[in-house]
Amino acid sequence: MELKVGILGASGYVGNELVKILSKHPKTKLTYIGSKNNVGQSYNALYPHSNLSLQFASEDLSEVELDVLFMATPHEFSASFINDALLKRMKIIDLSADFRLKNLRNYELYYHFSHPNEKLVKEAVYGLSELYCEEIKKARLVANAGCYTTCSILSLYPVVKEKVIDLSSIIIDAKSGVSGAGRGAKIENLFCEVNENFKAYAIASHRHTPEIEEQLSLAANEELKIQFTPHLVPMQRGILASIYANLACDLDEGELRKIYEKYYQNKPFIRLLSGKIYPQTHFVSHSNFMDINFCIDKRTKRLIIIGALDNLVKGAAGQAVQNMNLMFDFDENLGF
Amino acid sequence: MELKVGILGASGYVGNELVKILSKHPKTKLTYIGSKNNVGQSYNALYPHSNLSLQFASEDLSEVELDVLFMATPHEFSASFINDALLKRMKIIDLSADFRLKNLRNYELYYHFSHPNEKLVKEAVYGLSELYCEEIKKARLVANAGCYTTCSILSLYPVVKEKVIDLSSIIIDAKSGVSGAGRGAKIENLFCEVNENFKAYAIASHRHTPEIEEQLSLAANEELKIQFTPHLVPMQRGILASIYANLACDLDEGELRKIYEKYYQNKPFIRLLSGKIYPQTHFVSHSNFMDINFCIDKRTKRLIIIGALDNLVKGAAGQAVQNMNLMFDFDENLGF
Amino acid sequence: MELKVGILGASGYVGNELVKILSKHPKTKLTYIGSKNNVGQSYNALYPHSNLSLQFASEDLSEVELDVLFMATPHEFSASFINDALLKRMKIIDLSADFRLKNLRNYELYYHFSHPNEKLVKEAVYGLSELYCEEIKKARLVANAGCYTTCSILSLYPVVKEKVIDLSSIIIDAKSGVSGAGRGAKIENLFCEVNENFKAYAIASHRHTPEIEEQLSLAANEELKIQFTPHLVPMQRGILASIYANLACDLDEGELRKIYEKYYQNKPFIRLLSGKIYPQTHFVSHSNFMDINFCIDKRTKRLIIIGALDNLVKGAAGQAVQNMNLMFDFDENLGF
Amino acid sequence: MELKVGILGASGYVGNELVKILSKHPKTKLTYIGSKNNVGQSYNALYPHSNLSLQFASEDLSEVELDVLFMATPHEFSASFINDALLKRMKIIDLSADFRLKNLRNYELYYHFSHPNEKLVKEAVYGLSELYCEEIKKARLVANAGCYTTCSILSLYPVVKEKVIDLSSIIIDAKSGVSGAGRGAKIENLFCEVNENFKAYAIASHRHTPEIEEQLSLAANEELKIQFTPHLVPMQRGILASIYANLACDLDEGELRKIYEKYYQNKPFIRLLSGKIYPQTHFVSHSNFMDINFCIDKRTKRLIIIGALDNLVKGAAGQAVQNMNLMFDFDENLGF
Repeated sequence: MELKVGILGASGYVGNELVKILSKHPKTKLTYIGSKNNVGQSYNALYPHSNLSLQFASEDLSEVELDVLFMATPHEFSASFINDALLKRMKIIDLSADFRLKNLRNYELYYHFSHPNEKLVKEAVYGLSELYCEEIKKARLVANAGCYTTCSILSLYPVVKEKVIDLSSIIIDAKSGVSGAGRGAKIENLFCEVNENFKAYAIASHRHTPEIEEQLSLAANEELKIQFTPHLVPMQRGILASIYANLACDLDEGELRKIYEKYYQNKPFIRLLSGKIYPQTHFVSHSNFMDINFCIDKRTKRLIIIGALDNLVKGAAGQAVQNMNLMFDFDENLGF
Repeated sequence: MELKVGILGASGYVGNELVKILSKHPKTKLTYIGSKNNVGQSYNALYPHSNLSLQFASEDLSEVELDVLFMATPHEFSASFINDALLKRMKIIDLSADFRLKNLRNYELYYHFSHPNEKLVKEAVYGLSELYCEEIKKARLVANAGCYTTCSILSLYPVVKEKVIDLSSIIIDAKSGVSGAGRGAKIENLFCEVNENFKAYAIASHRHTPEIEEQLSLAANEELKIQFTPHLVPMQRGILASIYANLACDLDEGELRKIYEKYYQNKPFIRLLSGKIYPQTHFVSHSNFMDINFCIDKRTKRLIIIGALDNLVKGAAGQAVQNMNLMFDFDENLGF
Repeated sequence: MELKVGILGASGYVGNELVKILSKHPKTKLTYIGSKNNVGQSYNALYPHSNLSLQFASEDLSEVELDVLFMATPHEFSASFINDALLKRMKIIDLSADFRLKNLRNYELYYHFSHPNEKLVKEAVYGLSELYCEEIKKARLVANAGCYTTCSILSLYPVVKEKVIDLSSIIIDAKSGVSGAGRGAKIENLFCEVNENFKAYAIASHRHTPEIEEQLSLAANEELKIQFTPHLVPMQRGILASIYANLACDLDEGELRKIYEKYYQNKPFIRLLSGKIYPQTHFVSHSNFMDINFCIDKRTKRLIIIGALDNLVKGAAGQAVQNMNLMFDFDENLGF
Repeated sequence: MELKVGILGASGYVGNELVKILSKHPKTKLTYIGSKNNVGQSYNALYPHSNLSLQFASEDLSEVELDVLFMATPHEFSASFINDALLKRMKIIDLSADFRLKNLRNYELYYHFSHPNEKLVKEAVYGLSELYCEEIKKARLVANAGCYTTCSILSLYPVVKEKVIDLSSIIIDAKSGVSGAGRGAKIENLFCEVNENFKAYAIASHRHTPEIEEQLSLAANEELKIQFTPHLVPMQRGILASIYANLACDLDEGELRKIYEKYYQNKPFIRLLSGKIYPQTHFVSHSNFMDINFCIDKRTKRLIIIGALDNLVKGAAGQAVQNMNLMFDFDENLGF
């Protein structure tokens, strides 16, 4: 069986990564790439690094037959684009935030729009492959998890679930490469503005905050508030999160390791690094791996967790394909 | 004496560099910064790295009194902005290309506009400080030399003037940091497009070609055609030119060194590097120096000249201030 | 009056920066540069970006007359090199860690050597110009503060001193450019290892931890333990610290701003940024400024402080010259 | 059939790339990795980005059975390591320069050693897959072509072979990312030395000069001298060559394109870019493609060719695997 797959929004960095992964996937045939601006042009005329000669088509899907559609469109687009009729014709993996949050109020607070489709928000499965494997297998609509959120949630899930940390003390200091900001022509993302510079942004207000909080609250079975600060690193790819929490009990590193292994031992894309080898973004660059390690600081009785992933792969396109593999009952790591 | 100086176009990378140099210059007081978009805002609100609190004013100079105005505006702006009346009120150093070319036809061929002011084109002095020192001292209007052109011309001037090379064989392979492309919001200058990438551009068609040819033809007293290829380097500042020419006569490196010394021995900003130490862009970074060295390849009977400068300093703002020093009879290197 | 100044260890990145600043300082004459490996070579033969032609001399100071000596030597060198006899001949500003810590045990724990000179450790003044201004003015021996430590302490000092935060909750997540690691030939600092990579290192064990703790404990007048995690950013210069602490009382941003102004209003090198403009490393690049701003997160009742400086300037050579200015009663910002 | 393959020198950047490609190749099993320094350690303990857990063994191959051995060892090692007895046990693809040059005198001139094995130098096939396809298929020993040389030769081969250019006028101005310099701990390759810097090196003396000359002389059937200048770009991967030659005849771009197509139309890894799209290093990054395009400058009657490849892939490990595919009669592009 070979799936007919399509991508809406194939021109951005995430779209490019989807093209790259899906072009090599043994079970998919990319038959549709949709775009607002490039209709009629061939993909590799625009992106000579690729050999895909498929032409960009319009966003109108009425004549397009697909098994699965990946949407890498801007926020607020898929919220009204996706509907029940479309989902009867094809499965959809949405890489925007439009179906990630269960609490509709957070769309208003953090994304500044009123969500038009409560019913589908309820139906959509949160696309964090390691946590929602069974639900994703049965889903029509998957809301692919965000980049910072995947890194943060996977780093914290075991210790939140097992409540070995003080849940009110979680601080996530996250750092990302620039591709996370997309390919928009913005002065702040010019080479000369980014290179040789390091900065924090969206302090105490970033949109991934409610996404992390919703998911970790579900894990903890109680309402959590976390501190989340993103930073911009002068590099293209990669997210590294340094996470701090006060230990809630006496625990040595061996016991903690067992807790992580309990949740992740059969997860092909999670690597728990050993000893004093901590994640670095280049370990995961161009891969779908999520690397994790931790340190217990006995002086301060704090747990420090370091997590890293490639924001375009495990933080976006790679996890989307991993979710597709689950939805169509392929091996979870097929095509990687 | 303290000069009243102004900058029109202080928001770009060249404008920023002018602010930096003029703020520290012992003989100038920056009293006017003009801008199209930022009127009313203070400079350091926009650029927190600076301590200049002067407010941006409009481009209307009718009420502005200045000794000298620096114009770092886009091409085609100053061609019609500058006129005799204005030049009676203040000296002008124009950092755009609008008054650099003597052959008006080159504006049509390379800049795609018809120049409206032939008279001022004739009057304007080409602002390459080392070659036009005497003329600059008396000028009302200086057309500050371009970045690639300053690097290319200063590297070649002595050997062209002395005709020790085959003038038809000159090839300039030049490489520039990204700040040369300005602060415009263009996708091609985004960090993720530039970083980890190297490319040639404007092959056989770059706008600095006629500027280099006009000046070197004047030096040779005959019409020259040069081959010029610019490249984009993933770094912020710096231009390095690798220049090739066939030797027209038997010459050793000592004799060649004497030729360079003949023209440059009293030039404070030209450093002729010794032995096998060739220019590197970081040697000149953030300075007004132009570094030069050369190699005679006896196998191929070719001369290879390496020249380097900081495109924002000696290639733009620094040379403009050097020209100002000449125009007002200050020490040529005052303020550096 | 012109001081005779010398630098021992002028070959590293900090030494280069000292040369650069001292060469332009109106009250100093650089008459001695000492080095283990480059004796007899002129400085600008090794570093063609500089115009200093002074020759490297040996480390033997017996015949060298100086008003002040800067030492940018590896840790454990100055501890035995500096003695009372030498201090009778010249003032010394030591940029290594050898006289920064008052608790001698910390040298054993964090630097793995036993300090041979308790008496001078007691005499040495901690060279954080803003906090020890009066003591530095009278000092013979200044232990110039570290880079991470200057950034961390200055960011935190007012709120620790005023105890508006829970002192047990301080977390410093710091990020540094690579020049902080020095010019040693180490594989881990090669371009291909650092570029496009981001990592944490020395988690829960970095040497600047006791230095920060000693100084903040003095400010608080009680023993503090802080969490400190350094990270390596693929850039050359700059440190940015993101600092988290639980608020100990109800406080709005206006009140907090007044607390910072109380301590820093007359400090020429501290810039308290306004509103939502947070420090970025490029704001302070190549300058002696320390930029600070903060955010109160009402959701989490936490204070987030962002501080930034240039590790080679305010974090090393710049502060050393600022300290020299204080020691010789010059204007604090002379030469910058 | 699955080949048993080994790598001697798997610790450098080229060795790492070989491990990456061979680990995914459907017809190879990596059973041996040899190293001088890391014997006994597992590969992914040293390089956590990899999942290969194979242990490093010593360089002694007496007990090691392999179908093919890749050697990514320093120059002058394989010259004496490889012998007839070894070649009877396994095929060898040598990525060093030790068997690339046919003129033994060039080893003395450019590599400063006297080659001990003239017989094998004669037998070795030059491993530029596109030019020596048939010979490689039958070879026991392949001398994998160099990075700059592959880029230069493939860019020039058709026009040299067809003699449409003046063969005495060839100038190759080449630029390379830093991984080409290897993983040795050298100060000149530190991040802070390379970043924000651009430089030429080995002007008129680089070791790849005789290699390019030998091969192009064979193509031209006459002795050529070329001008070759390499430069270092602050990026990790990629080589771009800007090549200049005087046209020997009247030729338009369509005719020239046909010449290139004549030689390269069935070559799966050569992409002749169309129109005004010139090669950029990021088009070929992490791939085995060699991109070429050209421009005829009618003003100067010169041909400018731009060629680009990834120095670690088509310039080293990728081409080695392409050669292996040829040697074992696999599809040339298997595993890419």
